Amino acid sequence: MYLNRRNFIKTISAASLGTLIPNIAVASFMKPIKSKKLKLSFRTYDLQLKHTFTVAEYSRDTTPVVLTELEYDGIIGYGEASMPPYLGESHKSVTSFLSKVNLAQFNDPFRIDDILTYVDSVDKKNRAAKASIDIALHDLMGKIVNQPLYKLWGLNPEETPVTSFTIGIDKPDVVRMKTKEAKGFKVLKVKLGRGNDKEMINSVREITDVPLYVDVNQGWQNKEEALEMIHWLKEKGVIFVEQPLPKENIDDMAWLTQNSPLPTMADEAFQRLSDIVAFKDVYSGINIKLMKSTGLREAHKMITVARALDMKVMMGCMTETSCAVSAAAQLSPLVDWADLDGNLLISNDVYEGVKVINGKITLNNLPGIGIRKL
Amino acid sequence: MYLNRRNFIKTISAASLGTLIPNIAVASFMKPIKSKKLKLSFRTYDLQLKHTFTVAEYSRDTTPVVLTELEYDGIIGYGEASMPPYLGESHKSVTSFLSKVNLAQFNDPFRIDDILTYVDSVDKKNRAAKASIDIALHDLMGKIVNQPLYKLWGLNPEETPVTSFTIGIDKPDVVRMKTKEAKGFKVLKVKLGRGNDKEMINSVREITDVPLYVDVNQGWQNKEEALEMIHWLKEKGVIFVEQPLPKENIDDMAWLTQNSPLPTMADEAFQRLSDIVAFKDVYSGINIKLMKSTGLREAHKMITVARALDMKVMMGCMTETSCAVSAAAQLSPLVDWADLDGNLLISNDVYEGVKVINGKITLNNLPGIGIRKL
Repeated sequence: MYLNRRNFIKTISAASLGTLIPNIAVASFMKPIKSKKLKLSFRTYDLQLKHTFTVAEYSRDTTPVVLTELEYDGIIGYGEASMPPYLGESHKSVTSFLSKVNLAQFNDPFRIDDILTYVDSVDKKNRAAKASIDIALHDLMGKIVNQPLYKLWGLNPEETPVTSFTIGIDKPDVVRMKTKEAKGFKVLKVKLGRGNDKEMINSVREITDVPLYVDVNQGWQNKEEALEMIHWLKEKGVIFVEQPLPKENIDDMAWLTQNSPLPTMADEAFQRLSDIVAFKDVYSGINIKLMKSTGLREAHKMITVARALDMKVMMGCMTETSCAVSAAAQLSPLVDWADLDGNLLISNDVYEGVKVINGKITLNNLPGIGIRKL
Repeated sequence: MYLNRRNFIKTISAASLGTLIPNIAVASFMKPIKSKKLKLSFRTYDLQLKHTFTVAEYSRDTTPVVLTELEYDGIIGYGEASMPPYLGESHKSVTSFLSKVNLAQFNDPFRIDDILTYVDSVDKKNRAAKASIDIALHDLMGKIVNQPLYKLWGLNPEETPVTSFTIGIDKPDVVRMKTKEAKGFKVLKVKLGRGNDKEMINSVREITDVPLYVDVNQGWQNKEEALEMIHWLKEKGVIFVEQPLPKENIDDMAWLTQNSPLPTMADEAFQRLSDIVAFKDVYSGINIKLMKSTGLREAHKMITVARALDMKVMMGCMTETSCAVSAAAQLSPLVDWADLDGNLLISNDVYEGVKVINGKITLNNLPGIGIRKL
């Protein structure tokens, strides 16, 4: 019923057209069919933001996402692709990618390495689309063995970090209002980089003394001015500075990291696992987001590699439903800092999953990524 | 019954003595007790080698091991510590370590990170003893969710490598005989480093044309002579050279790796995860053994980190039963080369597990590490 009611797009994989693989009739979607092949379906959706979201480059009120379902033997895993404009993906690019993926060639959902290696090979780009399959596959696997992913990964759910809540760039009165609304959070992440940095911080500090993370989104240009600002921010109780300089400025960034009194975190500069080693002396750490990493599989490896390089790790997110946020939260006992507030920024979530309780990410006992449909 | 019959040593953890934790009577071991705490037991055992084992430094006919069992809620995971003399561990050091470990403080076997972090903190040394707990814990976890570990790790069991069979240093006629006996193997690992290197290789080559791995066990002293020998070995069909120089000779080793026509693999030089990054330009790759890595948890991370550093990975073993060999085999789909013949070198194995079929490591569908008691 769900698939019809929600107008799910039936995926008939490109590879199955014209082959001997039977074309499954739409009627068969009326209830979950037990099959021993993986079946992917997906639909587009627009997240409504509670507040207009402003960063250094742009503002927006909605975020397009694609919600995926991966079915095997009557069990369904949920996934999601979130496409904030700066990543260059859209409803069209993600559904186009997902339509090209033929998961029906796999009859064992535990072959995660094979499946995701294949998915990664379908196109060079489409990291969010790839994540939507990775998340659904992990959710499915966890449901098959009836355990939350954090358990299968051997993690202690009590070691989740607090999450920051993001304060976008705005006028002082709006910033003060948003800061008041965020009083349940133990740490705030303040967006900077549009020329009113001190005004932003001072507005927040009029309301609260909680520790602050700062995200510049490449908004600073001059390394000496950046260093001076970081010293000022440290005095204001800031913990780290994310993506202070344009991602291309590797040498300036290495100089800034070497001289900075606060850790510097790579965000836009950093996408895949293969990027990390080169960043060892350029940034103090990395901000891992499932929509950049292509999902949980690579994100987990990123954490392991970053730790071996003595780098800090934070787990971030896009504006996304409780699906992708809950998936990221499964790994969060391993990170230093988390910014997993994407689901809290929207008014039309379609799942319930991990909660923020007293500012801390709180995992539940549900299997897989730990979500239920609303 | 098993525990009495085999004279298992009941572990009463040091921490529980004199506390309010009840002292469990020996009678309760007559059948598995259902408890919601982890319970560790262990016994010493001596493996009988089919052939006297000779490497550059010494010869021996037996290897001491300690076999562990970790029980939770009526389910038992198996583990093993193998103590070849050069690692500096013994029956006494391992049982002494295990007696100090208080696993009864944990009531959730899925808290693998917490448990193994605690175990690692009990003493700085005792890597094999730590591995015996790690292996049993992973076996237990896999049995609880009723899946082999390779499945929980998302690996394809068909991607296991062939394993080499080891030919120890001996006189030409013995080497020829051993090589004939090893005709089922698709690759052989030849021990070198005692001055009769060319004689060893030539003796093997009189019998077979299969590819060879070479393990020098730090037996060469001069880097130029080592390079000359490696060129000769390449002509003889050798694939890589393991631990050619003494582990302390870092600079010579880096020079040799830079100039070598064959990959160089770190064995004795390399123990823990934290060692790997520094070896990036010193060796081409690493030989991971569970008895060095403290078990599967860290071994898995080592593979991830080595791959990120573009290093080769091989999985090796000590002389050990099918317990530790089968555990290592669970990770083997991820490695380039395997030398997992430790259980084939002994005449008194106590488990059956992974098999070598047509020279290839062959995983089974049993949960956990995939073994059964003989």
